[in-house]
Amino acid sequence: MLQESSVDSSGSRFAPLVVLELASDTKEEAIAWLLSRIRDWQQNGGAELLVEQLGPGIGVEEKENPNMFLVGASMQRLLCGAEDLGLFKECTDGSMRAFTFASKHNFKDFKGDGDGFLSMAECQYVIKHELDTLRAKEETNVPGYSHAKLYPGKSIIRRLLSKGILIQMFPLHENEELKRLSFSWYKKVKVSLQPLDDIRHYYGEGQALYFGFLEYFTFALVPMALIGVPYYLFDWEDYDKYVVFAVFNLIWCTVILELWKRRSASLAYYWGTLCRKKAFEEPRPGFHGVLGHNPVTGRAEPIYPTSKRHLRVYLVSLPFVLLCLYLSLYIMMIYFQMEGWALSIYDENPTFWTHILLFIPSIIYAVVIEAMNLIYRYAAEFLTEWENHRLESSYQNHLVLKVLVFNFFNCFASLFYIAFVMQDMELLRQSLATLLITSQILNQFMEAFLPYWLQRRRNKKMIRKIQKRRLYEEKELPLVEQVRLEADMSTYLGTFDDYLELFLLFGYVSLFSCVFPLAAVLVVLNNITEVYSDAFKMCRVFKRPFADPAANIGVWQLAFEAMSVIAVVTNCALIGMSPQVRSYFPESETQLILCTVAAEHVLLGFKFILTFLIQDVPKHIQDKLARLEFESLEALKKKKMLEASQLSKTVQ
Amino acid sequence: MLQESSVDSSGSRFAPLVVLELASDTKEEAIAWLLSRIRDWQQNGGAELLVEQLGPGIGVEEKENPNMFLVGASMQRLLCGAEDLGLFKECTDGSMRAFTFASKHNFKDFKGDGDGFLSMAECQYVIKHELDTLRAKEETNVPGYSHAKLYPGKSIIRRLLSKGILIQMFPLHENEELKRLSFSWYKKVKVSLQPLDDIRHYYGEGQALYFGFLEYFTFALVPMALIGVPYYLFDWEDYDKYVVFAVFNLIWCTVILELWKRRSASLAYYWGTLCRKKAFEEPRPGFHGVLGHNPVTGRAEPIYPTSKRHLRVYLVSLPFVLLCLYLSLYIMMIYFQMEGWALSIYDENPTFWTHILLFIPSIIYAVVIEAMNLIYRYAAEFLTEWENHRLESSYQNHLVLKVLVFNFFNCFASLFYIAFVMQDMELLRQSLATLLITSQILNQFMEAFLPYWLQRRRNKKMIRKIQKRRLYEEKELPLVEQVRLEADMSTYLGTFDDYLELFLLFGYVSLFSCVFPLAAVLVVLNNITEVYSDAFKMCRVFKRPFADPAANIGVWQLAFEAMSVIAVVTNCALIGMSPQVRSYFPESETQLILCTVAAEHVLLGFKFILTFLIQDVPKHIQDKLARLEFESLEALKKKKMLEASQLSKTVQ
Repeated sequence: MLQESSVDSSGSRFAPLVVLELASDTKEEAIAWLLSRIRDWQQNGGAELLVEQLGPGIGVEEKENPNMFLVGASMQRLLCGAEDLGLFKECTDGSMRAFTFASKHNFKDFKGDGDGFLSMAECQYVIKHELDTLRAKEETNVPGYSHAKLYPGKSIIRRLLSKGILIQMFPLHENEELKRLSFSWYKKVKVSLQPLDDIRHYYGEGQALYFGFLEYFTFALVPMALIGVPYYLFDWEDYDKYVVFAVFNLIWCTVILELWKRRSASLAYYWGTLCRKKAFEEPRPGFHGVLGHNPVTGRAEPIYPTSKRHLRVYLVSLPFVLLCLYLSLYIMMIYFQMEGWALSIYDENPTFWTHILLFIPSIIYAVVIEAMNLIYRYAAEFLTEWENHRLESSYQNHLVLKVLVFNFFNCFASLFYIAFVMQDMELLRQSLATLLITSQILNQFMEAFLPYWLQRRRNKKMIRKIQKRRLYEEKELPLVEQVRLEADMSTYLGTFDDYLELFLLFGYVSLFSCVFPLAAVLVVLNNITEVYSDAFKMCRVFKRPFADPAANIGVWQLAFEAMSVIAVVTNCALIGMSPQVRSYFPESETQLILCTVAAEHVLLGFKFILTFLIQDVPKHIQDKLARLEFESLEALKKKKMLEASQLSKTVQ
Repeated sequence: MLQESSVDSSGSRFAPLVVLELASDTKEEAIAWLLSRIRDWQQNGGAELLVEQLGPGIGVEEKENPNMFLVGASMQRLLCGAEDLGLFKECTDGSMRAFTFASKHNFKDFKGDGDGFLSMAECQYVIKHELDTLRAKEETNVPGYSHAKLYPGKSIIRRLLSKGILIQMFPLHENEELKRLSFSWYKKVKVSLQPLDDIRHYYGEGQALYFGFLEYFTFALVPMALIGVPYYLFDWEDYDKYVVFAVFNLIWCTVILELWKRRSASLAYYWGTLCRKKAFEEPRPGFHGVLGHNPVTGRAEPIYPTSKRHLRVYLVSLPFVLLCLYLSLYIMMIYFQMEGWALSIYDENPTFWTHILLFIPSIIYAVVIEAMNLIYRYAAEFLTEWENHRLESSYQNHLVLKVLVFNFFNCFASLFYIAFVMQDMELLRQSLATLLITSQILNQFMEAFLPYWLQRRRNKKMIRKIQKRRLYEEKELPLVEQVRLEADMSTYLGTFDDYLELFLLFGYVSLFSCVFPLAAVLVVLNNITEVYSDAFKMCRVFKRPFADPAANIGVWQLAFEAMSVIAVVTNCALIGMSPQVRSYFPESETQLILCTVAAEHVLLGFKFILTFLIQDVPKHIQDKLARLEFESLEALKKKKMLEASQLSKTVQ
């Protein structure tokens, strides 16, 4: 079986790209059916991919799952898949164009059969796409599983996943490449930039954009950090300097967010994702509806009315989120009351036990918040799934928005309360510093080192197990063991949590920047270690994720911009409340508030004008995009002309 | 000469579309050269149009200009021109596609030779475009005029215009069509909507969008007017009702502006202007620069660096505008001082002469403002021309923005002063009513009836003159007389002033709506008469304008949106200042202001979320646009494939 499995039906070996793990008790008929569908020709509705079963490991044990399958494809099949996906590649003339198999020799790095033309991440993305769009034909259920219903057009892989027959699907790591990447990325202490192109090559555009943003964000904060240091060192607390610092911060935040759009557009253009058209995206595997025809492409696919989705979003999801926010606010108020109550007990009777009582509200609050975050996250995922978005990007955006609002609220509500209701600037500064430092340390620990340590223990066990049987000279694991090892690694859940962390850090820097000028310094330091720990986590801790051909950072751009608008309001209010400013308007508080509000409006107006003036896409990229569009319109004209002349010939 | 001129070089008569009027003393060699360039084949760099000289009128007098030329073209030439312009027309399958001559039979209304397929406005636009893009070859100057320099690529028509050799170029009216249009448009009192499609057919998309917007705006104001009436009649001045009215107004303004975008996109789609690509627009005739190659189309055209234009905009135009605003503010302050001074003189010594003195400041102020508006308008036009914009649309946007800001300032600065510095609500209400009513009456008079009366006198003179010679049975004028009559008509200067009027009216309605609820009623009444007077003006008073293939109302959308944002601020402030609201916060003014500011922020936030949620283009139009894009990308792929297969054949 092992000997046969490494040879595909046509008799040639292939490079495994993706692993499918089925449940160990899957019925034989279901496996046979699935494999035949994957291997079948495309014109018969198959995926036309190569697939073989993974042989047993060296340390064969009872509990090992025999139903692991390696999926690959011939180079020609991969190139055709890339064409179907509309992947953009660089041409010999330096422009970016949609790859077509027929015009393959116009592309820059295309040599011979095309080996090395597509990156491994792209190949894996093609295979994922082909598997995802493998749809049921006349089958009414998965063979052997009468409860796993199928109907024409339903994604087979999705149904197998939802019924627990397919446990997971993941792309394989490439040991040589990974070693090279990790060396240039985080293994040497360096002053150079991150190898973004290599990251993109190995992990895809979504990951590379995240690391690009992290790097950009760090550099962008350096001026704020440099200016903030003397404020902290010399305890500059007088009005003029604070105002200058705050105004600089607010304008700087706007400028860096606008410039990031330009940088992101440049990166995405050269990575070929800027021109890929969203409207032709295939529906996400979880999308369901009545089978119909896509109004744009004319292809058969499930149709779900937008109005129904809107009803679900506005009548169910939105009220739910608002309710959760209210609940969170309510719990925060209880916390502040409990703290006041504990403090009063301690003041009345200061013993050891009442001193301990002082910490109890904070502990309860922290635990409740964590629990709420967890429950809310599950609820948000459930709701967003239920909203039935057609595109993966739309699903992600709705999920991000839900989780984001709640996390923002939980993270900053207490700071807002301290700043604007209690008006205790000293406490605000303390809370900010504490929150910032503890969250950074905890994050780095929870994110990278804990999972790494767990993983290391598991690996060692595995290696010991193998060494029991044989004595390995080389340290390289055989493919079979590597696949089993990777299958056991934790799954990387996307850039969501990484962005969320950056977003909250940005909040600490911008919202209360005029109270705690050192925040930017701390965030810069954190980001530097974050680059290393995130890189390490990606390379060593998690299963390799599928590439995500993102053109921008999506809803996060909007989130960061919204934060910078809120920052204008909070900073103006904080400056207006500071005793130095108050002393400028000794007799009239009204005038103070009016001046503050006027300043705030001017700053907001300036921000919007700035956003408007700085173009989102650099001029040279705009020209290139326009050129592509111009060419495609000209081509359409030519095609019509050809059709018309053929028509007139047949008429004659 | 007359007999020959109505027959073109190939011997067939043609329908005259556009008139060129050269100065009466133009040298023969220049005329001969211009006509030969216009008649020359396209491959030789000519325009390939038909042109003939207009014969002398029936009432031949010494002062009549002999150098008037009628320009036309064969149907085939017009269709090819329409293809070059990328005009979109409806296909037999209901979709909108760029017209190509080769695929002409796929289009819906194409019958026989194509007579009637292009509207007369489109034909005239094609001819204007061809004449505008008629560029110099090796000529160094206009023959006979050594000071009228030419260089390769310079627009000939533009140079002739700038040197005063070409007096004007205008499209001819079509008497039958015009009669039909004016009957259905304004000659009958009706409840039906305006014939937008007919207007578009006769005057082009820019005009039709203006009338569409005027109609939409009128209907959109009806709910505000209906709700405003009881407030006025029953003198409802209590807090709750006012707040409800103001909040309704603010949200309503946002909603109507957003919905207009959708309506405008629908109109523009079916008129074929939504898909026309801006980037491929030819540079405007006044654009100059070093001859180079367009980076998008690769065609030869003048190139002018964007950075230079930015320098001119930000370092010269922007400071100039700010200076003018400052000057205007300064003059307003002098006016208020003069008024106070006149009032104090009258109070001291109330005689007839001091009573007259009371009016003097207002009169001086009104005259100064008018003079400033006039001078500023010329300066703005000069500056915008000097900024050297590549596209006509970009030129228009910059001009509109400059004039708009200044007019807004002049119109509303005194009202802002009365409202927020003097805080005199009674005076504000009076000023608003006075300004609104007088400006409406004056506008209607100045815009339509005065020019009409002048025109009528001129026509009568001409008809009398003709009747001296011959006795006309029919009232129709012969073509020769019609052309001379139209050449004497005033030139329509575009929709600029019409939009500006609507914009200022919108300001009266929205900025201070909670002080003067009757404003919406007055504006609705004004708009109803405005439709008629504008329609009348277009049909009877002015020369026919060239069609302008606009896809939206351009910078005006932005201007109206900005106004609605300012309206939120002013209305919140006005409500906060009202005595009813003040009585709610008897002891603390601070709290009042904070509440007002909070309400304002909530409203602004809500506005932005609303803007974000309402999609700018309706779903079915989005689908159609995406389909077009999908098809053109597919066509590009096909073309590449074809090229590659041809390449491989030649290699074999």
